[in-house]
Amino acid sequence: MKTITVQTSAHAQMVDITRNVTEVLAEMGVEDGIVTIFTPHTTCGLTINENTDPHVTRDLLKQLDEMVPWRQPFYLHSEGNSAAHIKASMIGSSLTLIAEWGALRLGQWQGIYLCEFDGPRTRSVYVK
Amino acid sequence: MKTITVQTSAHAQMVDITRNVTEVLAEMGVEDGIVTIFTPHTTCGLTINENTDPHVTRDLLKQLDEMVPWRQPFYLHSEGNSAAHIKASMIGSSLTLIAEWGALRLGQWQGIYLCEFDGPRTRSVYVK
Amino acid sequence: MKTITVQTSAHAQMVDITRNVTEVLAEMGVEDGIVTIFTPHTTCGLTINENTDPHVTRDLLKQLDEMVPWRQPFYLHSEGNSAAHIKASMIGSSLTLIAEWGALRLGQWQGIYLCEFDGPRTRSVYVK
Repeated sequence: MKTITVQTSAHAQMVDITRNVTEVLAEMGVEDGIVTIFTPHTTCGLTINENTDPHVTRDLLKQLDEMVPWRQPFYLHSEGNSAAHIKASMIGSSLTLIAEWGALRLGQWQGIYLCEFDGPRTRSVYVK
Repeated sequence: MKTITVQTSAHAQMVDITRNVTEVLAEMGVEDGIVTIFTPHTTCGLTINENTDPHVTRDLLKQLDEMVPWRQPFYLHSEGNSAAHIKASMIGSSLTLIAEWGALRLGQWQGIYLCEFDGPRTRSVYVK
Repeated sequence: MKTITVQTSAHAQMVDITRNVTEVLAEMGVEDGIVTIFTPHTTCGLTINENTDPHVTRDLLKQLDEMVPWRQPFYLHSEGNSAAHIKASMIGSSLTLIAEWGALRLGQWQGIYLCEFDGPRTRSVYVK
């Protein structure tokens, strides 16, 4: 297992970590198999989405805010970041990827993203 | 790794691919282990849900449309299909399944679905 | 593969099953590898979220109810529990975890939860 460290720079942000993941897999000498990436936090997530037009990830974050407002009269969690926890469970803490012939089998338009929902923070991503 | 090809026939559609997956696993001779299925696209997803009453998947698509409207005044993505990208991240691009004694350990009512959010298109699903 | 049985006690409930999972992994002698946990039902899900303040999971269930109302005029599924099926697909039926040196690599604040969306029921969780 190797760990990637990601420094986010905004409260809500999608950080493309595809290159970080492929570099770590190369270091680990992964040729073929199932790759798990996992983030040990409860207010960020991991997802795959389009890597070309940055408006896609921007629209995604904005629509998540519409669906899960930062303030709701009924939230009780004292830290005030319930929305970030909820988005983390909607997006998920892990991804399962396929490697073959020494390369990740991602689609042409797919990038791997860390979704920051309560930053800026320093985040870890485990790769195995 | 094997690839399943799915031709979708509507703009939004849940296609039951359970039989496709079990046939491919039989071809691959999978007896026991963790099975990953992965779709290399950014406007469709993979999920497990009820395989009996087709109203379940129809209600799911309709409620996703309520939550993630096709048009929002703030969407900026020029292709106009931001909603499909957002739903793809909510549902996810991969599934992890368990095989034992040569069979997938699915529940009695569980089917594996490709969720088309911007079809009709030809979609791939990788099985490993 | 081992099976954990969880008896839920409310219609909507987040049950912390972290200890159940770690006990089963100890029984199985898992030292190092990728761990899949999977629930064979279509009206509950599995997620990771904060294990300290119970308001987090309570806020999560309440916000999911806001997003996916139990009654919608357009739901057609005759059992009347479409909302539970939809939440199950939003949260997901499986989790992929990393074990190393005989321990699950969870973050300090992470707990593993079974999310009951249509209880109370007896639920199974497979661990492999």
